[in-house]
Amino acid sequence: MTDQNASPSTARPVVRLRPGRARTVRFGFPWVYADELVLDRRSKSLTPGTFATLEDADRVAIGTVTVNSESRIPARLMDRDPEAVIDAAWLESKLRFAFEHRSRLFAEPFYRLIHAEADGLPGVIIDRFGDAAVIQPNAAWAEAMYAELEAAVIAVTGVSSVVKNASGRARKLDGLDEESAVTTGQIDAPIPVKMNGATYMADLLGGQKTGLFLDQRANHAFAAGLAAGGEVLDVFSHVGGFALAALAGGAKSALSVDGSAPALALAEEGARAMGASDRFATRRGDAFDTMTAMVEEGVTYDLVVCDPPAFAPTKQTADKGLRAYERVARMSAALVKPGGYLVLCSCSHAADLAKFRDASLRGVARGGRVAQLIHTGFAGPDHPTHAMLAETAYLKALFLRLE
Amino acid sequence: MTDQNASPSTARPVVRLRPGRARTVRFGFPWVYADELVLDRRSKSLTPGTFATLEDADRVAIGTVTVNSESRIPARLMDRDPEAVIDAAWLESKLRFAFEHRSRLFAEPFYRLIHAEADGLPGVIIDRFGDAAVIQPNAAWAEAMYAELEAAVIAVTGVSSVVKNASGRARKLDGLDEESAVTTGQIDAPIPVKMNGATYMADLLGGQKTGLFLDQRANHAFAAGLAAGGEVLDVFSHVGGFALAALAGGAKSALSVDGSAPALALAEEGARAMGASDRFATRRGDAFDTMTAMVEEGVTYDLVVCDPPAFAPTKQTADKGLRAYERVARMSAALVKPGGYLVLCSCSHAADLAKFRDASLRGVARGGRVAQLIHTGFAGPDHPTHAMLAETAYLKALFLRLE
Repeated sequence: MTDQNASPSTARPVVRLRPGRARTVRFGFPWVYADELVLDRRSKSLTPGTFATLEDADRVAIGTVTVNSESRIPARLMDRDPEAVIDAAWLESKLRFAFEHRSRLFAEPFYRLIHAEADGLPGVIIDRFGDAAVIQPNAAWAEAMYAELEAAVIAVTGVSSVVKNASGRARKLDGLDEESAVTTGQIDAPIPVKMNGATYMADLLGGQKTGLFLDQRANHAFAAGLAAGGEVLDVFSHVGGFALAALAGGAKSALSVDGSAPALALAEEGARAMGASDRFATRRGDAFDTMTAMVEEGVTYDLVVCDPPAFAPTKQTADKGLRAYERVARMSAALVKPGGYLVLCSCSHAADLAKFRDASLRGVARGGRVAQLIHTGFAGPDHPTHAMLAETAYLKALFLRLE
Repeated sequence: MTDQNASPSTARPVVRLRPGRARTVRFGFPWVYADELVLDRRSKSLTPGTFATLEDADRVAIGTVTVNSESRIPARLMDRDPEAVIDAAWLESKLRFAFEHRSRLFAEPFYRLIHAEADGLPGVIIDRFGDAAVIQPNAAWAEAMYAELEAAVIAVTGVSSVVKNASGRARKLDGLDEESAVTTGQIDAPIPVKMNGATYMADLLGGQKTGLFLDQRANHAFAAGLAAGGEVLDVFSHVGGFALAALAGGAKSALSVDGSAPALALAEEGARAMGASDRFATRRGDAFDTMTAMVEEGVTYDLVVCDPPAFAPTKQTADKGLRAYERVARMSAALVKPGGYLVLCSCSHAADLAKFRDASLRGVARGGRVAQLIHTGFAGPDHPTHAMLAETAYLKALFLRLE
């Protein structure tokens, strides 16, 4: 049984690991699974998000955790210091550490500032779009400390507007609501975001995720380097991530295909803001249907990009998802000119690099094309992974050249 | 028995696959292993390097191969066309296709032009250093066609000097000699090579491999982006790949550690050519001994890079090699300032990304440091991999930030 008197130095709750389970935490692993923790009546009664001292089976304090007994991961490490006080100053120091890295990486203030565990804040995602920030407090502790989190973001970055985005899937799992709102300042319209020489319009309130996929920046840049003078097709385009970067890289033309009219409208707005509307076109429709039609039309491109939604988000969907990736590869390869380039992306957690690569290359080969793999990209360096969770890297981009 | 009359359309030899072994070749796999080929007296008598028509077990011609019955891979695909004529014009078309890609990628003429199978020329490596090219004809067919290969390189790129580098390990396996020589033009001194704003001195005759590791270019660039204003340590520095890029990126200082005095002399010469000698220093010695000494000295750096030789070149050396990578990670992590960066590289075929990453992150954790993985890099896009040999990618670079 947990005994509060066992930790006289702190008044806060204590949770205890089962025997033999302290090694991974001592080694830096940030999660404690349900079968590793003593989940007695007292720890189950803790309000989700409560900070507690984590002890090993011998009652030696080994860290500060946030507890949510209903979660698959009932304790997440906040600090390796069992005495750590998780307050406004603690939050600000985490944000400053993360900010220093992003400021070094990017000349312009558009980036992911906090990428959850990897940046030391379990469940928290914070994106910066110039003068605005979007906070996703996808954990009970972060919901409870939202005001302090917001104040720290403002203090560190100087943004004047903050959006609370409460649409994350993880929030539902944590029993949180799904309301989003502007919590500081005012946001009336999509924000122009400058990346790789392109201008994207980010709808911070109405868009998917936080309005723009910042994680693809380095892959956009690599694709743009292949695009000069060429005709570009961007399938599953969303707000034009690859297409607009290609135009900034000197593409002769770019065509965005997506099923979402609002996303394509934002892409068009971006192209206008770049002065590239005359080289940009959109085609609304299902990606598979559109590619099938294009193959029948006999059109080909110098650069084709397919960045679909996650076909294999979970282990249960992995096989079906991999077949879908293979199909995307086979169909899109048919649209690439000889000597042209094909970029295939996956943001599926359950399809690791080797599996996604095998499925994609199989699809290209079944399409009768011989390919070189010239580059493999991941999410950018503002989307770090925790060293002990390196297998959680989700975004993969394969760059192929076809004979 | 192989019967020459079975292929009336061509006078050249025929080799035949065993039943059931044609599928992978039809699918684009470029190698035929010894147990897949009918190795009868006639095919064994073929001069190594001979071009032959590859037939399936039903005597259907499915490609043109180069045959070397002594090799572990006795047939390598030259062309999917069984009627292909491998002559000067064929070689030139392969080189033009490869050249087009590199010209698109790089503003300055320093790159790998041909990366063996991936560029359609089995066993052939060609690097371009401005006005000079280095050809490694690491296959019997390429040795036999060296004159045509050289002429095609000159025709396509316009280089005025060509070096034949015959030091490749693979040549010994193919029974070729190990003499290197300037076969066209003249090369008297190391050649200045401009990459990422740095100047490297490439010794095309005396250096390791082809005088400079071009494959690390993108990783040099990424490291340089982390180096501005910082103190940089480059262990296993060779001719200063990471150190000089870091200086070009605005590093306050860079120290190269290597066991080779000639390599460090070339690094110093490069720093002089860049006008960065006042920020550059070298320390000759064993990397492990030097890192141990530095830990004792208590020095730390903003950016530490370790790019060791292949510790796990073969399956037999994999376990030992992974332990060496772990040791490098543990030792080098101790030399990184809080908030600083650590770059760990492997060029071991037998340590795949997951294994190398696990060993490295374990080493960092055992050194007591908490790390974010911010970026994973591979060989640059002028070092493509054949789609069917994607697992042969050898170069990995992990970029970590340490708390």
